[in-house]
Amino acid sequence: MNYQAILNQIHNDIKPIVGQGKVADYIPALAGIDPKKFAMTVHTVDGQYASVGDAEEKFSIQSISKIITLTMAIACADQTIWSRVGREPSGSKFNSLIQLELEQGIPRNPFINAGAHVITDIIYSNHSYPKQAILDFIRYVSLNHEIDFDLAVAHSERETGNRNLAMGYFMKSFGNIHNKVREVLDVYFHQCSIAMSCKDLSTAFLYLANNGVLPTLGKTIISKKDSDRINALMLTCGMYDSVGDFAYRVGLPSKSGVGGGIVSIVPGEMCITVWSPGLSESGNSLVGTRALELFVNYTGKTIF
Amino acid sequence: MNYQAILNQIHNDIKPIVGQGKVADYIPALAGIDPKKFAMTVHTVDGQYASVGDAEEKFSIQSISKIITLTMAIACADQTIWSRVGREPSGSKFNSLIQLELEQGIPRNPFINAGAHVITDIIYSNHSYPKQAILDFIRYVSLNHEIDFDLAVAHSERETGNRNLAMGYFMKSFGNIHNKVREVLDVYFHQCSIAMSCKDLSTAFLYLANNGVLPTLGKTIISKKDSDRINALMLTCGMYDSVGDFAYRVGLPSKSGVGGGIVSIVPGEMCITVWSPGLSESGNSLVGTRALELFVNYTGKTIF
Amino acid sequence: MNYQAILNQIHNDIKPIVGQGKVADYIPALAGIDPKKFAMTVHTVDGQYASVGDAEEKFSIQSISKIITLTMAIACADQTIWSRVGREPSGSKFNSLIQLELEQGIPRNPFINAGAHVITDIIYSNHSYPKQAILDFIRYVSLNHEIDFDLAVAHSERETGNRNLAMGYFMKSFGNIHNKVREVLDVYFHQCSIAMSCKDLSTAFLYLANNGVLPTLGKTIISKKDSDRINALMLTCGMYDSVGDFAYRVGLPSKSGVGGGIVSIVPGEMCITVWSPGLSESGNSLVGTRALELFVNYTGKTIF
Amino acid sequence: MNYQAILNQIHNDIKPIVGQGKVADYIPALAGIDPKKFAMTVHTVDGQYASVGDAEEKFSIQSISKIITLTMAIACADQTIWSRVGREPSGSKFNSLIQLELEQGIPRNPFINAGAHVITDIIYSNHSYPKQAILDFIRYVSLNHEIDFDLAVAHSERETGNRNLAMGYFMKSFGNIHNKVREVLDVYFHQCSIAMSCKDLSTAFLYLANNGVLPTLGKTIISKKDSDRINALMLTCGMYDSVGDFAYRVGLPSKSGVGGGIVSIVPGEMCITVWSPGLSESGNSLVGTRALELFVNYTGKTIF
Repeated sequence: MNYQAILNQIHNDIKPIVGQGKVADYIPALAGIDPKKFAMTVHTVDGQYASVGDAEEKFSIQSISKIITLTMAIACADQTIWSRVGREPSGSKFNSLIQLELEQGIPRNPFINAGAHVITDIIYSNHSYPKQAILDFIRYVSLNHEIDFDLAVAHSERETGNRNLAMGYFMKSFGNIHNKVREVLDVYFHQCSIAMSCKDLSTAFLYLANNGVLPTLGKTIISKKDSDRINALMLTCGMYDSVGDFAYRVGLPSKSGVGGGIVSIVPGEMCITVWSPGLSESGNSLVGTRALELFVNYTGKTIF
Repeated sequence: MNYQAILNQIHNDIKPIVGQGKVADYIPALAGIDPKKFAMTVHTVDGQYASVGDAEEKFSIQSISKIITLTMAIACADQTIWSRVGREPSGSKFNSLIQLELEQGIPRNPFINAGAHVITDIIYSNHSYPKQAILDFIRYVSLNHEIDFDLAVAHSERETGNRNLAMGYFMKSFGNIHNKVREVLDVYFHQCSIAMSCKDLSTAFLYLANNGVLPTLGKTIISKKDSDRINALMLTCGMYDSVGDFAYRVGLPSKSGVGGGIVSIVPGEMCITVWSPGLSESGNSLVGTRALELFVNYTGKTIF
Repeated sequence: MNYQAILNQIHNDIKPIVGQGKVADYIPALAGIDPKKFAMTVHTVDGQYASVGDAEEKFSIQSISKIITLTMAIACADQTIWSRVGREPSGSKFNSLIQLELEQGIPRNPFINAGAHVITDIIYSNHSYPKQAILDFIRYVSLNHEIDFDLAVAHSERETGNRNLAMGYFMKSFGNIHNKVREVLDVYFHQCSIAMSCKDLSTAFLYLANNGVLPTLGKTIISKKDSDRINALMLTCGMYDSVGDFAYRVGLPSKSGVGGGIVSIVPGEMCITVWSPGLSESGNSLVGTRALELFVNYTGKTIF
Repeated sequence: MNYQAILNQIHNDIKPIVGQGKVADYIPALAGIDPKKFAMTVHTVDGQYASVGDAEEKFSIQSISKIITLTMAIACADQTIWSRVGREPSGSKFNSLIQLELEQGIPRNPFINAGAHVITDIIYSNHSYPKQAILDFIRYVSLNHEIDFDLAVAHSERETGNRNLAMGYFMKSFGNIHNKVREVLDVYFHQCSIAMSCKDLSTAFLYLANNGVLPTLGKTIISKKDSDRINALMLTCGMYDSVGDFAYRVGLPSKSGVGGGIVSIVPGEMCITVWSPGLSESGNSLVGTRALELFVNYTGKTIF
């Protein structure tokens, strides 16, 4: 397929709605983003690459970083992580404490905030320099050694992170955070602040479209089984409280962030990344979701 | 692939665990089933068929009937159904009233009991003889005109159906059941009581593996888009409160029933059905889930 | 004290707010009440009686009937009732099913709807003609043999009683309703429909101000201990979800109904009844609550 | 009445159950208390005093300190506190975050932990040296200038206070904690650690039995209205999740602490204090509750 032509068509199709949605404004560094930004890239496992819009402009990846730390945690702690975090959709807002209380401090899955804290706690326990380890990993898989934290974002997150602190201390009261809450959250706020472009992201997560092997380097990142599993978790838990609606409309394993990015996987074929800062009520990029829906309509690439 | 050989292998593999799990015992008609029953069938869109075990023995399809009524409701009421029922995983037990209260009588999805009541209410509003319409549909797609309700089961369900009545009246108090609660539930209890074999089921739902077209008859049941969507709903909502774990382990759109049956779809390829009455804690066939996991391991057929 | 002068003063004080609040409108028979109605009576254990307003006009006592059935249930089933219903404030809306689900079908107290259903179920099990038994009791204690059900109200309640049916069937699914749900609720809807005046009510419940003995007849209705306990339950659970605020402002054991009536007890001294149909957001008579607050201010009669 | 004789009788009556209940063990300083300790004192507004057991031995007052800070907050911030904390029973465990989430960070009442944090936050905003102000107040009303924090307890609380931290940060995320969470909680942990004897306590809270005036000094601490209101709050919210049961059995405004102390008020007459470290499941002193029940049985002193 001529993916460049398809992306061009989508870019044209979504013009009337570019700028729609509400830019995340809980920290100044995110609130200032131009809502009209848009980018979309496709990177196939056999080396094709296509892009439209601001495909090399960096943005805050936010919750997309949860794929990075989950991959790293599976690599270093393997199946032991599943006694500390579930694999089920939450059925409620991404930052709810209710379920955490009813389920004794075990978060429902690694993609809600509480679950991601546990995953980062595992990274913290297994790496002497956890922040550096996260950077090293994402630089390696994205082939871009200039990727870095956006410290202004990381510090802002820390300033406004009272609900994340509440969750961290709550889980600690159940014994499900092993290290110091403030230190684990410091790592977490840094990972969320990582700045990457669509190009970087669709290169980085290509191993999830290729049975765990990074095709650009020929290196195995995780086993095929674990790659399938991360895709399954992305499909059932990756899009906040609208996973069902997203599966219904798009039907691809995906992970979004409040910075407006979405990473989608077509297993065996490609990684697609889209960026548009305006969010829907459920916290996913509004224009980005529409762009992915159009991509599936044009290409028939859905897992269903 | 030689599906018969694979099924034989699985039949052999699962022998040590056949009989495990807890047979549903809330009604006598289900409690009396031999826990050692096992059957598995594969029916491909290009006409291959393989089976092991008691593949032609009928059992109570229970919640698998929710695929039937959802297909019928989409056919007759189309997109209007989504204002009355959501498309998100419930994140809680299949018969919880808590979420129903918090979300003003709108059930989370068509595969939890409350959601299925709404779907049956739609069938009731659109068919003069709703029970007969359901039978007609399932007989048509399964090519088996002897399929019928098990009246002993239907009556038992009605006797013990207090929680279903509670849900029905609760949704009626929010205006989300349009007909008489007892009459809608009478239809619901009948649809759950339908007795079918694995052979019947893997023939009936082949349209979900073939873009909405029943390959045996060459007839379009629903659009490709709606077929994709039902598969997406099965993946995110079809396995009670363990959809995430099931997607992680098996990775196929599936729907289970407390009678011990599971229907799984490999999009574009086949419908797989398994039956083993012992249930796991989450209410899904324990041996059946394991058999499907083995099938995916042997064949690599997963959507991820 | 000159209670007549105090009531006259209160009647004058509340004139500017008479008519405020929202009349219950879920059934036509209640919705049609003139919102400007007001009555207040005081009946002391030593035989003084004072009244203002429409003190002999009957209105629908609604939830005030829960004191009647609780008294009768204590008389016939004694302490066994406390294994089936709690004695704690609900901390949530009077018709919530959430707590009922979390606490396995045991309602929090006898004054929320679900708890009253259980109490009525006990009456039903212990009386051949439960409706007649309830009428007999209330006619006896109020010295008024013309008190009767308002059948139009009872039938309306049944028509619109879906949420009560939901609660009834839900508790039955936990085994906490022993008789047929529809028959128990038929009794319940009848007891709620009883029409009484303020004069009737302040005579009827005088036994709660007199250690269980009805002073008008010199007859013991319940033990002093049980009388104290009903007062305690009224104080902690009698005013829907604003018991704390009501205790803070008024400080008397009280029970309200959505018909706009409130019965308050000054232990050892008197029964006060007020009626004004407009309700506050919490479902208690708005003007009635204010009138009681003034009564306490003028007389210093509070239990605190 | 001869209160000394009554206390002697109670002391004798409860001998068979002394030592029952479970001593709080979440911090070492509490876990080490001898479970057989028992003390009870009565202090009347007209100057009578009676005691049995270890009435001058100090223990950790814990949640009883919430009466102190509530009194102080009413004195300095008056009615403005009620926009930040409710006056309703919680209907759930004293440290639940569920209700806090459903009600947007507004705790149900000042006697659950979250509500007490808000009250302490108010103290913090209104006093330059909040810890010293709390000590000053309690020393003044108890006529005992040697009362002090138990620093070992305060530090232990801080070490294990993850759930309190979770609540604090959660409310801060809703804007309902105005100062730094750690500093407010530092004050809170100190107030909980105050060590007092039954003699101290029944002297200190005598103003609640005397319309807000401390009879020992003839000084007005709060208005009669506010004194009534604190008593009302104690009755509806003072005994964790068993306020209804406690009102049913004892019927006096009371506040308990996990150190095993209970303070009860007979309005207009006296303050009763009891101490026995073993707790019931609801977190109230088991033997202490029984002793109070006996006191009411012997004296008829109940508000109902």
